[in-house]
Amino acid sequence: MNGTIHGVGLGPGAADLLSVRADRLVRGTRHIAYFRKAGRPGQARRIAEGMLREDAVEIAMEYPVTTEIPLSDPRYNECLSAFYAQCTQRLIDLSSAGHDIVVLCEGDPFFYGSFMHLHSRLTGVVPVAVVPGITGMAGAWHATAMPITWGDDVLTVAMATLPEEELTRRIRDTDALVVMKIGRNMAKLRRAVAAAGRQDAAWLVEYAAMPGQRVTPLAEAKEVTPYFSILLIHGQGRRP
Amino acid sequence: MNGTIHGVGLGPGAADLLSVRADRLVRGTRHIAYFRKAGRPGQARRIAEGMLREDAVEIAMEYPVTTEIPLSDPRYNECLSAFYAQCTQRLIDLSSAGHDIVVLCEGDPFFYGSFMHLHSRLTGVVPVAVVPGITGMAGAWHATAMPITWGDDVLTVAMATLPEEELTRRIRDTDALVVMKIGRNMAKLRRAVAAAGRQDAAWLVEYAAMPGQRVTPLAEAKEVTPYFSILLIHGQGRRP
Ligand SMILES: C[S@@+](CC[C@H](N)C(=O)[O-])C[C@H]1O[C@@H](n2cnc3c(N)ncnc32)[C@H](O)[C@@H]1O
Ligand SMILES: C[S@@+](CC[C@H](N)C(=O)[O-])C[C@H]1O[C@@H](n2cnc3c(N)ncnc32)[C@H](O)[C@@H]1O
Repeated sequence: MNGTIHGVGLGPGAADLLSVRADRLVRGTRHIAYFRKAGRPGQARRIAEGMLREDAVEIAMEYPVTTEIPLSDPRYNECLSAFYAQCTQRLIDLSSAGHDIVVLCEGDPFFYGSFMHLHSRLTGVVPVAVVPGITGMAGAWHATAMPITWGDDVLTVAMATLPEEELTRRIRDTDALVVMKIGRNMAKLRRAVAAAGRQDAAWLVEYAAMPGQRVTPLAEAKEVTPYFSILLIHGQGRRP
Repeated sequence: MNGTIHGVGLGPGAADLLSVRADRLVRGTRHIAYFRKAGRPGQARRIAEGMLREDAVEIAMEYPVTTEIPLSDPRYNECLSAFYAQCTQRLIDLSSAGHDIVVLCEGDPFFYGSFMHLHSRLTGVVPVAVVPGITGMAGAWHATAMPITWGDDVLTVAMATLPEEELTRRIRDTDALVVMKIGRNMAKLRRAVAAAGRQDAAWLVEYAAMPGQRVTPLAEAKEVTPYFSILLIHGQGRRP
């Protein structure tokens, strides 16, 4: 009998923002896997700190270092693809030995998540189940204490990795905005927001629902921002 | 001492998809409020079925019937505005008497939610706290068992209440799509998806994570769809 591989959404960061279903799975499992950068503790693992069984077996899946390879270079994709294939094999081996495994996922696993690359490789091979989670962006708009969308506002979610002109066009053409994967794209993103004329409406949220949460008007934000950063513009739709 | 009014996200429908924080608040509270249509049980209340204290005091806030008034008529907004003001006053009275109140919200309270209209009126008057939730749209993409966004996909969230030409333009110009508030706008939405040339990629999800959940390719969906319906187009971005 194969064990089931559960991709479990942990929500934005706080330990009590896991769903009841996710909380039970994380606390109950013996085999627990998560992605992290080499030499880092990993945010997903941090969220689950204090929740794991004493006898939990941890499977840290460490991303290969790709910072030297440009995103457009085919070796970038090859390198990641080989990594995901290897992680998949590790999980299949455990499943074949009859173990259930919980894979920890930040936010929602099916929303720009790394687990998706395992999910597509595992489906049809071993039993897979996925538990939704509160997204990082929901954590971010709650950190600002303001609703993100009203009435028939259009919400656009875009990655800061997009070209500057495309970012500008998207920011101009939406009511509400969420931008993720900011990191080194901060200067470009700031120019795009300014070119779209919306600098005064934009907020930067760092570490939403995590220790060190910070909410800053974009105009006052620094040039350097952590990986866990989200830019928001709140919609202003109909509010009777 | 004023009591706190908690706007609590219940997630898309399943009882174990509440966050741990929401679950504790709903089970622990004596005063519980929720919106519903006159004469209907209300979805938020249904999700909380079986979770309430035996001595719970229920405050059903029944929407006024506005179906006869066109959305563009100023009386529509006036009618809703008077209703929200009256609900607000009821909650303030309870808070002033020292009671904490949990307001049940489908999905996430700050994402196109009715609670937002109370939140804006309560803020600064009595203590208010909001608990994020898993959105209905996350429930919907999990119902399809397919991730919604990959790599640097752009996700557009739009309401089916928008004009047909605007819907068409938005559908054409996005990688991934979520359309909510479909109801009577189904025929218009279907034409917009077809005009954008994406009919074969679109899915209709009814009652995500609720009893009666149904996932149908748009091409096979009926003309009539319940209020709890979401249309999805999954992104096809980079997947190493
Ligand atoms: C690979 S995506 C993963 C998204 C995740 N699956 C979700 O549902 O939020 C990583 C990006 O999510 C955003 N993010 C996720 N959680 C966050 C949080 N708690 N605070 C700030 N940003 C967050 C950041 O923009 C980060 O670059
Ligand atoms: C007023 S909005 C409320 C959205 C909610 N606050 C959320 O976070 O999902 C109502 C719309 O949400 C969508 N919706 C919410 N939950 C749903 C579910 N479980 N299944 C299908 N549609 C849902 C429907 O399109 C519905 O018309």
